[in-house]
Amino acid sequence: MSTPAAPSPQLFFETINAFQKCAALKAAIELDLFTAIGQTRSTAAEIAERCSCPVRGIRILSDYLTILGFLTKENGLYAPTPDSAFFLNRDSPAYVGASTDFFLSSEIVDGFKHLTATVRTGTVQHSELGTIAPDHPVWVEFARAMGPMMIPAARGTAALVPLDPSRDTKVLDISASHGAYGIAFGEANPRAQIVALDWSAVLEVAKANAEKAGLSDRFSTIIGDAFKVDLGTDYDVVLVPNFLHHFNPADCVRFLRRVQEVLRPGGKAAIVEFVPNDDRITPPAAAGFSLVMLGSTPEGDAYTFAEYQQMLTEAGFSDAQQYPLPSSAETAVIATR
Amino acid sequence: MSTPAAPSPQLFFETINAFQKCAALKAAIELDLFTAIGQTRSTAAEIAERCSCPVRGIRILSDYLTILGFLTKENGLYAPTPDSAFFLNRDSPAYVGASTDFFLSSEIVDGFKHLTATVRTGTVQHSELGTIAPDHPVWVEFARAMGPMMIPAARGTAALVPLDPSRDTKVLDISASHGAYGIAFGEANPRAQIVALDWSAVLEVAKANAEKAGLSDRFSTIIGDAFKVDLGTDYDVVLVPNFLHHFNPADCVRFLRRVQEVLRPGGKAAIVEFVPNDDRITPPAAAGFSLVMLGSTPEGDAYTFAEYQQMLTEAGFSDAQQYPLPSSAETAVIATR
Repeated sequence: MSTPAAPSPQLFFETINAFQKCAALKAAIELDLFTAIGQTRSTAAEIAERCSCPVRGIRILSDYLTILGFLTKENGLYAPTPDSAFFLNRDSPAYVGASTDFFLSSEIVDGFKHLTATVRTGTVQHSELGTIAPDHPVWVEFARAMGPMMIPAARGTAALVPLDPSRDTKVLDISASHGAYGIAFGEANPRAQIVALDWSAVLEVAKANAEKAGLSDRFSTIIGDAFKVDLGTDYDVVLVPNFLHHFNPADCVRFLRRVQEVLRPGGKAAIVEFVPNDDRITPPAAAGFSLVMLGSTPEGDAYTFAEYQQMLTEAGFSDAQQYPLPSSAETAVIATR
Repeated sequence: MSTPAAPSPQLFFETINAFQKCAALKAAIELDLFTAIGQTRSTAAEIAERCSCPVRGIRILSDYLTILGFLTKENGLYAPTPDSAFFLNRDSPAYVGASTDFFLSSEIVDGFKHLTATVRTGTVQHSELGTIAPDHPVWVEFARAMGPMMIPAARGTAALVPLDPSRDTKVLDISASHGAYGIAFGEANPRAQIVALDWSAVLEVAKANAEKAGLSDRFSTIIGDAFKVDLGTDYDVVLVPNFLHHFNPADCVRFLRRVQEVLRPGGKAAIVEFVPNDDRITPPAAAGFSLVMLGSTPEGDAYTFAEYQQMLTEAGFSDAQQYPLPSSAETAVIATR
């Protein structure tokens, strides 16, 4: 006979104190602790010296990062895990530490301070529109911080929608942000013109990235509200990355109709989104994104593929398909005009 | 040949966003969502009606709580896990939701806002003494919120140190807080007088709990700083629960000498503490407590058993032993004068 396990408050304690995990990782990034360890196996005293800090805090922080799984510790020597060496060492080209500025920006964090009231009233409390307000400054931080991380998913999306190499083509990148999606299409298709749409300050980041990619002569911009501004016409592809989740389904359909109208016949809408399964609890990273929309937008959500299919059909698209994207919790949903 | 796994930034994303987990659980407790579900299997709409909330936020929150492991979801019906039903339903006698007020009190959370500067300078930034300042209000919240949760560990400690039933005995409870430790000794030993020491406002909570336990006639108090105030004399046991971790080792020894001086010959010091193994990374809950001391005290720490043995020996104790405690991540360390 097996006895049932005694009830445990462990998950409650761990979750209610989860802000400490976040604070510890933020401190490690701000102190550049992973860069200080580099590829060495170091004592707390050695790391403290390299970070110019007293040893007590560095030792406690390094132990905690070991408990969380960012470091290993053997015989008192700390070393980075392979993931930490790849993503959290400033000397690595894949460094993601800068994204902390976006994830922990006051605009995002403040939304979660009032989550109870948001659930009670059904909408965000800290401002009328949350992060979908015009020219919201958080999107400049997002563009700067998240661009490098989006490159594999952007290239994956470009590979899914090859353009006709025998003629000039046109790609519209909605809420272009860092511009990575449009740039990936420009790189994969030498005859494609890229048109990036976003708020003015954000487009400066996209333009700088396009220039770095050597695409300046095929890169232009449209400044303004994607729901209202003239989008141009005759596009082969309209990219809609990380945009629709901010809105309710009716507004998504309204927007997709605009997309449909500016595409050539046979042109494609390429949506990139967190797409949970129908159960809305798997996969965790995509399903959990819904809470970010609850905390930061009036009516946004993480929609299922069935919901996107429905929206696309209502907007006049056919043949919607979904595809996983590399190095990403997101999914490409591609449909044809 | 096996290929090594591709590097993943998943742990980084999960950890940097961990504040969202904490916010979601706090919202669920404030909305009394677990009580609203009770022992039923309910749709989001049913829960929303019971909580008097619009359905969108309740649905997103319930999905997120399912992802975190607090609820189950099958065919659109949410149900509590056994642990959630036991600890998070207000109708359960084991309800721990009230402790949220302590864990997320601004005094605790603020310490983590400045963790980088704390590591850089070696000490807390938001105040000179952190939570060890005299009459710090956080300890009243702690006493109110944490008392019920401490009862199993308190009874476990009392069981480890049975007192002579044939004579009157005396127990001193240092930093008594909710009083649970002293009260457990009073309940287990009908001839024991309990003396609880803490700040004045905190002792009101302990006194109320002693009265509820029917111990008022054997319960007295000492108000003040445990390092300075007259402790009395001739104790059979001095309880030191959750106190020493706030101080550096030299101050711990200094304090344990005071304890030694007020014990009868053969009397016991019973320390209750988060005691990590020598590696300082296991077990996670005890080892991770060190970060709380980094964030909230000038020089506190989670000490290993070897360190407590050393402190106790220096203070004149012998025969230190450690014992696990029921329903707790803490350890009892018991030594003899």
